[in-house]
Amino acid sequence: MISAAASAQQALGPGTGLVSPEINPDHSVTFRLYSPKAITVSVTSDCLPPRVIEFERDGQKTVMELDGVAEMTQDKNGVWSYTTAPLEGELYSYTFLVNGEKMLDPSNVYMKRDVASWVSYFTISAEEGDKGWYYEVHDTPHGTVSKQWYDSPTLGADRRLTVYTPAGYEDSKAKYPVLYLLHGSGGDEDAWSDLGRVAQIMDNLIAEGKAEPMIVVMPNGVYFNQAAPGYEVNMFQPTMTNSRSDSTKEIEDSFTDVMKFIESHYRVAKGRENTAVAGLSMGGRQSCALSMRYPEKFDYVGMFSGVLPPTEQSQREALDNLFKNAPELYWIACGSADGVMANCDKLMAYLDEKGYPYEFYESDGGHIWRNWRVYLTMFAQMIFK
Amino acid sequence: MISAAASAQQALGPGTGLVSPEINPDHSVTFRLYSPKAITVSVTSDCLPPRVIEFERDGQKTVMELDGVAEMTQDKNGVWSYTTAPLEGELYSYTFLVNGEKMLDPSNVYMKRDVASWVSYFTISAEEGDKGWYYEVHDTPHGTVSKQWYDSPTLGADRRLTVYTPAGYEDSKAKYPVLYLLHGSGGDEDAWSDLGRVAQIMDNLIAEGKAEPMIVVMPNGVYFNQAAPGYEVNMFQPTMTNSRSDSTKEIEDSFTDVMKFIESHYRVAKGRENTAVAGLSMGGRQSCALSMRYPEKFDYVGMFSGVLPPTEQSQREALDNLFKNAPELYWIACGSADGVMANCDKLMAYLDEKGYPYEFYESDGGHIWRNWRVYLTMFAQMIFK
Repeated sequence: MISAAASAQQALGPGTGLVSPEINPDHSVTFRLYSPKAITVSVTSDCLPPRVIEFERDGQKTVMELDGVAEMTQDKNGVWSYTTAPLEGELYSYTFLVNGEKMLDPSNVYMKRDVASWVSYFTISAEEGDKGWYYEVHDTPHGTVSKQWYDSPTLGADRRLTVYTPAGYEDSKAKYPVLYLLHGSGGDEDAWSDLGRVAQIMDNLIAEGKAEPMIVVMPNGVYFNQAAPGYEVNMFQPTMTNSRSDSTKEIEDSFTDVMKFIESHYRVAKGRENTAVAGLSMGGRQSCALSMRYPEKFDYVGMFSGVLPPTEQSQREALDNLFKNAPELYWIACGSADGVMANCDKLMAYLDEKGYPYEFYESDGGHIWRNWRVYLTMFAQMIFK
Repeated sequence: MISAAASAQQALGPGTGLVSPEINPDHSVTFRLYSPKAITVSVTSDCLPPRVIEFERDGQKTVMELDGVAEMTQDKNGVWSYTTAPLEGELYSYTFLVNGEKMLDPSNVYMKRDVASWVSYFTISAEEGDKGWYYEVHDTPHGTVSKQWYDSPTLGADRRLTVYTPAGYEDSKAKYPVLYLLHGSGGDEDAWSDLGRVAQIMDNLIAEGKAEPMIVVMPNGVYFNQAAPGYEVNMFQPTMTNSRSDSTKEIEDSFTDVMKFIESHYRVAKGRENTAVAGLSMGGRQSCALSMRYPEKFDYVGMFSGVLPPTEQSQREALDNLFKNAPELYWIACGSADGVMANCDKLMAYLDEKGYPYEFYESDGGHIWRNWRVYLTMFAQMIFK
């Protein structure tokens, strides 16, 4: 008797026995793909030197960094391969391009989804405490990750969210502070837990004593979706444009439904000093908006590659109102190659003009998950202390 | 500014706009792949008529059903396509074979992993209440799915498990019966929740009043792994042979650690009448073993495509001991094309000889998830009543 899984593996052909990616002792990585009839095979990855392209958009010269590409070479057995330079500790993603068409690595079980795109990935843990190390699982106590549904009367629907509770929560009677952590356009309640490595980062930071034990709540921030693909009534294909990303109003209006559910179902330390909101891109704009809409609720505000520039008088008044009692931490982070920087500059110009306290962290790179994981790792160490 | 996700999508080329799979009004399905330079493209799927192959194994003639294959045809724009016959309601999986090599569908965000193999999938909901309907999400109350860690002193490790609690659990004070649900060789604590559609099946059955509200616990049944890929300290590549699937002893020995954790962290209705164990393949053998090892614990035993034939005197004595106080339900299910049937026959011959009560369900098909989802849907309706 041969199982279905074994037979499915047979369909992979001789390539099944390949090791790819192979992390070499010097932390270079070898990619391999069995594809004897392909004409060209290359690998595209954020572990390769980026391609920088320039183009015109809306009459403006725009610079964009794309993942690097390396051509692979074929051996006499039909196996294509490429070995990178030694890499820093990090979580890297990649796909193959076979005759120019994207293909995931059939030898690598590790894959993740960003909006509708899947990529293969691997981590390099060059040394303890580097970025790659924080994204890996270590022999520390582990928190719980729950996928749960709450009722949102404001949006007229049951909606799904992800909750991380730290190790020890279930065996304790203590109350915990809460970080509400919001995803970007086209994302969902699975984005931060899967792409953002929230459980791994929080487990590692808490075990080292670098972050306070906290509950992390990751709701779905697209107001007209209930849940991630596979958990929504419709089997929809997510897209970036689906999010109508300029709108934060519905999420603002309904955010009290999320907080009410969490505060009535978890042992929550309430009050502004125990509550943080942060998000990436659209979630950064939402965090910015939520801190103005509910100035009494959040003492820690993290805006990762996304802010609302105070271009209208009503926004400037809302900021003035918020900073009457300034948040303990108002943290803006952005990559130097990120087009969002212009909005960050506008916000910071107003904060500077008024003398409102904030912190700014500028990284290299653009509008990418590599940066958002770093920003979360930094932000989580600064809150509830 | 263009995001990394948008740029990753660009790498897909003109194929990005394709709809695949497209479910047509007659419930036929059209698969499409943009691959202008491919020499041959076909689709392999369990929605196509199976290929039946015969071969010799250990001197025995063996018959195996493989997923069907259909050749796709290329249009002048480089798009390959194939349309199936109308399909019954079901969850179907597929991959493309491009020049004979397996490739996932880049137009379909829905994918699932079985051991180390990923496949694309879709559901057909031909009419309310068919199999496909049960595997989809409907507008019913939804339970919670938690990924959690427990301490196993017996195995000397923290281990990960999946817990489904039914809708209303968090807002109730009631105690709930527990189904322990075990995966097969090479599987892990994510297998039943992802491939087995446990949350969807249970949500739908409970909402219809066809199953009692119950907690479903899905531990990792490979004693030398702590967790699924991505949650284990090592980034291992799972294989079928990894499971040393003939051994149930370590899981028997350590199962009380699982039950102790669940009974101390959930509102559990204890006692044999409130406790069920079931599993598929290796998990069926483990369920068989656990019911003999702990005859006082399980009133409902489900063995899906996996039993221990009582070839040794000690096993026959353990069965005799169990059936001194026969379980309320001792349920064996197997596909007619499944090589495990020979073991089921041996077990049932002994039960018949002794007059021990059991139920047997024979489906068509082999050792496949399609059957295990059906068996779970049936078993869940028969327990705790």
